[in-house]
Amino acid sequence: MKPTKNSQEQYQKYVLAMQKIQDLNSATALLHWDAEVNAPTKGAARRASQIATLTATAHEWTTAKELDELIHALYESKNGLSENEAANITLSWEHLQKAKKLSTDFVTQFSTIKSAASNAWVKARKAKDFGLFANELEALIEQLKQKARLIGYEAHPYDALLDEYEKGMTVAKLDVLFEDIQQQLVAFAKQLRTKGKATENTFLDKDYDEDEQWKLGLFLLEQMGYDFEAGRQDKSVHPFTMSLSATDVRVTTRILRDKPLEMISSCIHEGGHGLYEQGLKDEYYGLPMGMATSLGIHESQSRIWENNVGLSHEYWQANFLRLQQQFPAQLQDITLERFYKAINQVKPNLIRIQADEIHYHLHILIRYQLEKGLIEGSIAVKDLDTVWNKLYQDYMGITVPDSAQGVLQDIHWSEALFGYFPTYSLGSLYAAQFFAQAEKDLPNLKQEIAQGNLTTLRIWLNENIHQYGQKYTSEELCKRITGEGLNFEYFMKYVKEKYGAIYEL
Amino acid sequence: MKPTKNSQEQYQKYVLAMQKIQDLNSATALLHWDAEVNAPTKGAARRASQIATLTATAHEWTTAKELDELIHALYESKNGLSENEAANITLSWEHLQKAKKLSTDFVTQFSTIKSAASNAWVKARKAKDFGLFANELEALIEQLKQKARLIGYEAHPYDALLDEYEKGMTVAKLDVLFEDIQQQLVAFAKQLRTKGKATENTFLDKDYDEDEQWKLGLFLLEQMGYDFEAGRQDKSVHPFTMSLSATDVRVTTRILRDKPLEMISSCIHEGGHGLYEQGLKDEYYGLPMGMATSLGIHESQSRIWENNVGLSHEYWQANFLRLQQQFPAQLQDITLERFYKAINQVKPNLIRIQADEIHYHLHILIRYQLEKGLIEGSIAVKDLDTVWNKLYQDYMGITVPDSAQGVLQDIHWSEALFGYFPTYSLGSLYAAQFFAQAEKDLPNLKQEIAQGNLTTLRIWLNENIHQYGQKYTSEELCKRITGEGLNFEYFMKYVKEKYGAIYEL
Repeated sequence: MKPTKNSQEQYQKYVLAMQKIQDLNSATALLHWDAEVNAPTKGAARRASQIATLTATAHEWTTAKELDELIHALYESKNGLSENEAANITLSWEHLQKAKKLSTDFVTQFSTIKSAASNAWVKARKAKDFGLFANELEALIEQLKQKARLIGYEAHPYDALLDEYEKGMTVAKLDVLFEDIQQQLVAFAKQLRTKGKATENTFLDKDYDEDEQWKLGLFLLEQMGYDFEAGRQDKSVHPFTMSLSATDVRVTTRILRDKPLEMISSCIHEGGHGLYEQGLKDEYYGLPMGMATSLGIHESQSRIWENNVGLSHEYWQANFLRLQQQFPAQLQDITLERFYKAINQVKPNLIRIQADEIHYHLHILIRYQLEKGLIEGSIAVKDLDTVWNKLYQDYMGITVPDSAQGVLQDIHWSEALFGYFPTYSLGSLYAAQFFAQAEKDLPNLKQEIAQGNLTTLRIWLNENIHQYGQKYTSEELCKRITGEGLNFEYFMKYVKEKYGAIYEL
Repeated sequence: MKPTKNSQEQYQKYVLAMQKIQDLNSATALLHWDAEVNAPTKGAARRASQIATLTATAHEWTTAKELDELIHALYESKNGLSENEAANITLSWEHLQKAKKLSTDFVTQFSTIKSAASNAWVKARKAKDFGLFANELEALIEQLKQKARLIGYEAHPYDALLDEYEKGMTVAKLDVLFEDIQQQLVAFAKQLRTKGKATENTFLDKDYDEDEQWKLGLFLLEQMGYDFEAGRQDKSVHPFTMSLSATDVRVTTRILRDKPLEMISSCIHEGGHGLYEQGLKDEYYGLPMGMATSLGIHESQSRIWENNVGLSHEYWQANFLRLQQQFPAQLQDITLERFYKAINQVKPNLIRIQADEIHYHLHILIRYQLEKGLIEGSIAVKDLDTVWNKLYQDYMGITVPDSAQGVLQDIHWSEALFGYFPTYSLGSLYAAQFFAQAEKDLPNLKQEIAQGNLTTLRIWLNENIHQYGQKYTSEELCKRITGEGLNFEYFMKYVKEKYGAIYEL
């Protein structure tokens, strides 16, 4: 056993090294943010080289021999470290083991094949011709299989890819969840489509002034408790959240004059991501406990705000009057009831990012089945387009007119993000389960929301989730908070009650 | 003699290494820019550590043994390199020799003493008490003397400090210039003050709408040929220019409702800096030939636009009508003649950054005499306040009421920027000499300006100055362009003609 003092000295060395790596990563994040928000077009090439240099340097530092040895020594002897310090070391050690499984040669080759795939996808999408992307996707999938072999897995190669975004997630677990989605949600969506009463909602497509929308968005973020002294909001083509540190978290939104709901939902959605990042402990800057635990949990934070709060009757009890006052010409004749029903319309559609909160999961179900099939080899790339179209017919009853609105719609596959899509569904399912628990823990929650008081919910999320960073995995967090693992029934109960009422089933 | 092929291979290695260093420096520039323009307040501490990490890494890479050896080998054998490639190598070699003269220990110690001085200056300025800054300034000056010894010099220790900002500049040369300023400009300024007729200019202090000012600023930049696809303008407390590459150059301005001239002059001033940065050749990104040659030449580019163009009768022949149309309530009764005289009022004042183009040099003259005296030891720090106040009385006939408006007004000394102030005067003097030459080379120049056509001047500056980067020193550039070294008479002739007419002497 080494003396305590040494461990603490070594731990401090480790912290400094990790913070330096984070400094590079934060500068890279700023370059990315700036590219989306500010940067002049002609600077793109130099900017790409700036990002590449910083990224490569961060990778070099992350995998440097000295840091490896330091983490290994601390991992072997955690004497004198606090529980949280020990957690950081264990997590860093795990990250490092994983990072070392991929050789620099493999990473370089992978990156070349990814670039080719990205370029091919852009062309194929423009030409609406999946054939132009098929060869590159095939090569990419071979690389992904290789990556899975290098990382290693027990039951299914896709497990190795899932683990990167959602630690501990497996095909075995997802099969159960997506089976539930397929069995229960496909049928429920169909029921709503055929038996439910849709509400007229064309007033949401009227002309809504851009400046007024912008002001509204800032108000909604402020109301959620997003800290503008530790963050800001800007506009970008695709809304996103970027964190430079817990004290500098940036969200963006997009404003379309005839789609105010897009601005509203993206503000609340990114605001939820932003609150997670702002809620991480600044003292753990650069350390695992200062980083979000998984994409699924991250998405649960955006979805709980966007859907469970932002599409609730209570939320609009608090905010509809303000909305109406900001847009009297568009909304003076609309009642709160009508507005609430209008923003909660369920309708099958081709494009994932425009889906309602029920059909959204059918989009993800399709991507999950296809990714799994491609990785295990039960689906051939050449058939992907056809299988995609068939599944959209089977699950949603809609015909895909062309592959730009079909298999080529998302950028993820061209960027090798296999195992990523499922986290979108996981996010909503976690959100429903967390919200149900929050209602138990906070008996006045719905009344508070109806009064525009979102503070207790934000604090509840911070205390139960944000503050821990990666200390607990998604599953551990879920069990700690709700007493059980992820359970689809919470989501099902939520949508049945809510949409059953709206559609008068 | 090494074979040509090797030199080219080594040169390419050198280019890649320099570009990587520039990538870090550009990311640091973005962090600085963002801190002034965007960043939320709470992120300041983490941001400081991000900047520190990137700066230290860039320094490490710049002084790395491998790069040193590479540059040395290329410097010894330039066979197979083009003239410009050889110029880059020679300049990089010179930079490196200089950088190596300061040990890491010295740099660290210097940085600590600088921090102490900065903090003391902030407190002293707030308390209007020079005594609170004197000890720290004294320590700083000892360090600067030490720095001069380490760098080395022939005639005067201040030469070593000047050289950092203006390669080749010496006390011997500056003494001549500032003797001219003292002999001719002090007297001329006095003549204007006592015999000239001032013009009423209070209409410039009326209320000018902020949005309209912003639009005007963008128009003026566009008119100068500032490329908004390779740059942008934002607002900040102090206007500045920041370059991430020749393809991404950012200027800022400040808008005060009752000081439209401040916005106008800062736009044109920073625009001039911006055109220099945008005019550097992108192929030399990270190399000496892709960097501005000196602060004096940089300032000549801002001043030629701000003063020689932006305060000229011709410029406002082109732009006054537009200004009047944007601000009818403030300017409808004002003639072009009255406006031109109003913006060219000469008046002694306490604060350098608010000075007119004549008194500006008297401010710099005072700082030059004091810096030289402090470094050579002929002025004691404890007397600085008193000497400062006496010189303001002698040269401008004004009494300094307190040291916040006197010796403590500028941040430069607290940041150890000794040798920097003279480049402000050099900039204006070069600008006058260059403009006189441009008038010879471009016989229609003034007519073009009067028509709002600023293109030929911009191209002339680009071809004569911008494109060369550091290939030529200030003095070499000046001789190439005007056939002689820097000559104060051009400035004197310019102000005598212009202000003689305005003040009806």
